[in-house]
Amino acid sequence: MRATVLHGERDIRLEEVPDPVLSTGGDAIVRVVAACVCGSDLWGYRGVTPTPKPRRIGHEFVGVVEAVGPDVHTIKPGDFVIAPFYDCDMTCINCRNGVSTSCLHGGWWGGNDQVGGFADGGQGERVRVPHADGTLVATPSYPDEELIPSLLTLSDVMGTGHHAAVSAGVTEGSTVVVVGDGAVGLCAVLASARLGASRIVAMSRHESRQALAREFGATDIIAERGDEGVVAVKALLDGIGADCVLEAVGTKESMDQAIRSARPGGMVGYVGVPNGGPELPVRPLFNGNIGVNGGVAPVRNYVEDLLQDVWSGAIQPGKVFDLELPLSEIAEAYAAMDERRAIKTLVRP
Amino acid sequence: MRATVLHGERDIRLEEVPDPVLSTGGDAIVRVVAACVCGSDLWGYRGVTPTPKPRRIGHEFVGVVEAVGPDVHTIKPGDFVIAPFYDCDMTCINCRNGVSTSCLHGGWWGGNDQVGGFADGGQGERVRVPHADGTLVATPSYPDEELIPSLLTLSDVMGTGHHAAVSAGVTEGSTVVVVGDGAVGLCAVLASARLGASRIVAMSRHESRQALAREFGATDIIAERGDEGVVAVKALLDGIGADCVLEAVGTKESMDQAIRSARPGGMVGYVGVPNGGPELPVRPLFNGNIGVNGGVAPVRNYVEDLLQDVWSGAIQPGKVFDLELPLSEIAEAYAAMDERRAIKTLVRP
Repeated sequence: MRATVLHGERDIRLEEVPDPVLSTGGDAIVRVVAACVCGSDLWGYRGVTPTPKPRRIGHEFVGVVEAVGPDVHTIKPGDFVIAPFYDCDMTCINCRNGVSTSCLHGGWWGGNDQVGGFADGGQGERVRVPHADGTLVATPSYPDEELIPSLLTLSDVMGTGHHAAVSAGVTEGSTVVVVGDGAVGLCAVLASARLGASRIVAMSRHESRQALAREFGATDIIAERGDEGVVAVKALLDGIGADCVLEAVGTKESMDQAIRSARPGGMVGYVGVPNGGPELPVRPLFNGNIGVNGGVAPVRNYVEDLLQDVWSGAIQPGKVFDLELPLSEIAEAYAAMDERRAIKTLVRP
Repeated sequence: MRATVLHGERDIRLEEVPDPVLSTGGDAIVRVVAACVCGSDLWGYRGVTPTPKPRRIGHEFVGVVEAVGPDVHTIKPGDFVIAPFYDCDMTCINCRNGVSTSCLHGGWWGGNDQVGGFADGGQGERVRVPHADGTLVATPSYPDEELIPSLLTLSDVMGTGHHAAVSAGVTEGSTVVVVGDGAVGLCAVLASARLGASRIVAMSRHESRQALAREFGATDIIAERGDEGVVAVKALLDGIGADCVLEAVGTKESMDQAIRSARPGGMVGYVGVPNGGPELPVRPLFNGNIGVNGGVAPVRNYVEDLLQDVWSGAIQPGKVFDLELPLSEIAEAYAAMDERRAIKTLVRP
């Protein structure tokens, strides 16, 4: 089959690789219907994180089950399924606690750390999915074509934006600031609106992203950053800042912006991958009773809940995809995001 | 009147000072019935924080109202009152949000930053209390002598321990680890039991404190620290750690112990004053979805709630006082805590 292989800085190729095979009894083979490129895929593509040897890549996909092992009971061939950006059994104590990213038996697509050995990356034609009953969620039936982008966001960005909102405690009537206008930040706006926030301030400098933020429920847009951004936030929110701040970038600057945008007693929900790991300044957090919560989003735990609203059409997170390409043009899919010509690229094998 | 003045490292004196006078219309004069020495008072006493010029000290007291200004309506002369470790109006947006330590018009005892100018320290005979209606809570009647120590803990340590528990989300059935066996840590144990925690692990090396922790509701004691402490915590708690970890020390080591004792998806509630301000390591927090919440405890917001249980005798946080002295022996009150001969010292003018 064909799958995407990252060779090094800005060197990404579609190559012939071995077909996946069932190996554990509890796994499944999924034919990928749609996949996409993640902002975090760009760390390797840009050479920010090294690629010592070629590796398979991609961790967001939806598709159709082609085969299952004898121990798989809830997923069956023919099902249209959503895969989270990792695999997990959904039976261990961490999965049951709602933190499936810390599954005691889980792993990451394109790696060898999974049950049964290698599991394929998502940017390819097929994937071996370990403990399929835990990892995969089947849709009620084969979806309409127009639903597929939104279903695909449940693999990562919509669930991740939702996690930022849940971690920050967004609820009916909350005031919210969202730092970051990438796909996750935009989904965080949508998630906040869905949870009943009364005021949602999106921090964005890009006109097209501002427009989508408004469509997703943002009530206010702030283009300023740094000190000016903080002043603008407080001016909008009673002079004190937001109940909940959702951080969807992961740099020292964005985390600083987030902490300073929270009111005393407020909470920052962060899901930006902390590249390089900025440390959190404890003194301002302590003095203002500002909490910090979140992390790598356990999106699998949210799929059933969010799927209902995607299926009904109540939310359309798939609008974050502003470019669609065949898998054969994967190099252009990366380049378009790298050069900020696209918010997020969907690819189809 | 006589009041305590800190002159420098291990130089603390009871001196004659001016009597307080009403100045704003909204303030009150309180005759102190009982006060105490706080662990944080020791930072100045030990010279860890400098004392460039002599200053009044003490921020925990209960007493009897002697006079009120014409704008005071809920507090009246003769009331027995509890004062939090700061003053606040309880009408500003931060007070209404439950974060009275961030009161827009509040300040700190023994300082000049309050409404109406100087407000006395708590370790003295009398105190001018700004916006008395907000700051003070009157008890239903004059308390029995035996209740006074427990009422005094509502000034700080019991409310602070409770804030750690609330910030960490302790609720019915929670598993809890408490890092720190000082008065606040012990009160955090008591607060967790009151909130319905099913398992409370106190980390303590001191036999007398272990005994009081058990009396307050600790189900397990761990004497080990560092890596060994983390291993012991996980061995007790399903191999993963605690739902809620309460940090009541404020050093880099204690915060590290706390973070490593939380399960994936757990929450650290911290109230230890971060002396020197350790930064929080974002990567392990992110990977494990471990949140950090808390800060300088808004104890005023908790007084009414906790007072009910103190008044009924349901909780007896006053047991943290293991030494009582007349105010004239304030120097010994400090020395006993400095030399760890006492957990916490109560003084009476």
